[in-house]
Amino acid sequence: MTSERSKKPLIQAARGEEPDRWPVWFMRQAGRYLPEYRAVRADVDFVTMCRRPDLAAEVTWQPLRRYDLDASIIFSDILIPCTAMGQELTFDKGHGPKLSAPVRTMADVKSLKRADANKDLGYVGDAISLTKTKLKPAQAMIGFAGAPFTVASYMIEGQGSKEFTEVKKLIFCDRPVITALLEKISEVTVDYLLMQVKAGADALMLFDTWAGQVSPAIYKELIFPSTNQILAQVKRASGVPVIYFPGQGSDRMYELSGCAADVISVDWRTRLSNAGKILKGVGLDVTLQGNLDPQALLAPEEELRSLVRAMKEEAKSAARAHIFNVGHGLLPHTPPESLSIVIDELRK
Amino acid sequence: MTSERSKKPLIQAARGEEPDRWPVWFMRQAGRYLPEYRAVRADVDFVTMCRRPDLAAEVTWQPLRRYDLDASIIFSDILIPCTAMGQELTFDKGHGPKLSAPVRTMADVKSLKRADANKDLGYVGDAISLTKTKLKPAQAMIGFAGAPFTVASYMIEGQGSKEFTEVKKLIFCDRPVITALLEKISEVTVDYLLMQVKAGADALMLFDTWAGQVSPAIYKELIFPSTNQILAQVKRASGVPVIYFPGQGSDRMYELSGCAADVISVDWRTRLSNAGKILKGVGLDVTLQGNLDPQALLAPEEELRSLVRAMKEEAKSAARAHIFNVGHGLLPHTPPESLSIVIDELRK
Repeated sequence: MTSERSKKPLIQAARGEEPDRWPVWFMRQAGRYLPEYRAVRADVDFVTMCRRPDLAAEVTWQPLRRYDLDASIIFSDILIPCTAMGQELTFDKGHGPKLSAPVRTMADVKSLKRADANKDLGYVGDAISLTKTKLKPAQAMIGFAGAPFTVASYMIEGQGSKEFTEVKKLIFCDRPVITALLEKISEVTVDYLLMQVKAGADALMLFDTWAGQVSPAIYKELIFPSTNQILAQVKRASGVPVIYFPGQGSDRMYELSGCAADVISVDWRTRLSNAGKILKGVGLDVTLQGNLDPQALLAPEEELRSLVRAMKEEAKSAARAHIFNVGHGLLPHTPPESLSIVIDELRK
Repeated sequence: MTSERSKKPLIQAARGEEPDRWPVWFMRQAGRYLPEYRAVRADVDFVTMCRRPDLAAEVTWQPLRRYDLDASIIFSDILIPCTAMGQELTFDKGHGPKLSAPVRTMADVKSLKRADANKDLGYVGDAISLTKTKLKPAQAMIGFAGAPFTVASYMIEGQGSKEFTEVKKLIFCDRPVITALLEKISEVTVDYLLMQVKAGADALMLFDTWAGQVSPAIYKELIFPSTNQILAQVKRASGVPVIYFPGQGSDRMYELSGCAADVISVDWRTRLSNAGKILKGVGLDVTLQGNLDPQALLAPEEELRSLVRAMKEEAKSAARAHIFNVGHGLLPHTPPESLSIVIDELRK
């Protein structure tokens, strides 16, 4: 397994080795911008797509049929584990995710189920195993989960939020509740990620979309420790490289001292060169991933090529290695042909 | 005028002098968290409140009656100048601002009126003059405007946005349109700010709420130049200190080389100490303003006092001087008594 992995450019780059070629993939590469995705989605709801390994594998394969990508990330959602903890997850058209029964008291936290990753979330493992049957040997299979604070924020608010008032109330007025919730999510998350490696994941990614929603001090004392414990635990237990994405994370870079991640995924607000410098400053020699603004994929071909060239140039000296990606998930209006242009320019 | 100003702690700090006391004010200190504000607002719509100097002055005074503040900021909205350029501004309950007739083509830009700040926006000047009649000599009157990119974003999208797709389309596919729009807004903004100084403003603030919505490269080549031109022009022409607030601006700090602002207002995502270091690194010796998370005002008294003490400690060595403030506007659910606690702790 290990020697197989060592031939995959994404894994090579993640480990800080010279990759056979510049690895590239796109966050949310299986998604609504692809007509073939919309065709599958027309008949089933989002959560069912995540739960049926045949459908999850199908949409995970879709971008790989179109593009010469170095990685596949299993089609799922960071809130899927919440369903195994007792909340109901729905996606209404035009709105984001909704979770039933928001968690706001210690009693709420205690009533959450201690999910059994193998039994309750085994369908994600099945989807990974099925997806792998059609991957090329050089392609890496990425498993993932939400970081505990980001998942907790949804569980507390019951949906996405602009101000995160319920979350902040717990942070400032009832700290033990959110601490207990983070712990409970962390336990499930570790099992969940290790289950994905068992099923065939070659690398793991932890999405902390809302990492930027608290002050740096709160991030450092409350959020980073639980996040980093997961990164360290799954890395030690599985041996696969781990990628951490702190969303809106420009100044989060200062707080990552001791981070166990092999790769830091950088959002498009931050210069790769600055991220690299700050991370080195706190003692981290990591690989960087990112960070084209997904909206730049709207640009005409020549403009887009020039943006990719600039990013290649910047990435060369920003860190020990680089994985090309967008700085946030692809948007539904992304022109599919733009991905081909990016990949072509990158491989030049 | 100048010697009068030099006795105001906010102005002293803004100029990098030792202030008579640690200056403090709160962004959106005239707002919905105050019952007396809601009482005024119950009878008139938001735009009318901005247009009637008696009402604008009344709500501007409200926080000054309750708290021992060092500054007053005129009650208005960054989109008020858009109304003088031909767009209609409305605030629907529970939603943010809406502007009619979104600006998306060169024809749209050309059809915008070249507003006459004195004639078309004179009511803001009148509100400032009226407000000043009841300020204490040590209290500074702050005038303000939106920075051109932030105003342009609303004018293009027609409302707030999460993805700023229409803005990004112009940036990546039709650059001359947004460039022309930024120029048109800038012209009005300079006149508008200078009119406010004539009416009595002791300092000016430029709100760039959406500064973090583009990549650093785009910010540097497209957005910062127009913003900085305004800062430099109004500072030179008026002699009053200018404050610049780049929202979600952690990594914007790297791009501010040559910035004409006397004060950089820091959002709550960024450590004051990091902001200070980065700004010094690009050659800026400025005063910092900020940056308590407005949600921290939900904290119980002892927790809140401890957060203020920590910020005082950090601010001491972060920059040449510091103006205490929140890192974003106050929210409607802010407990009014929390502001008294902050001010009391700060003055200890």
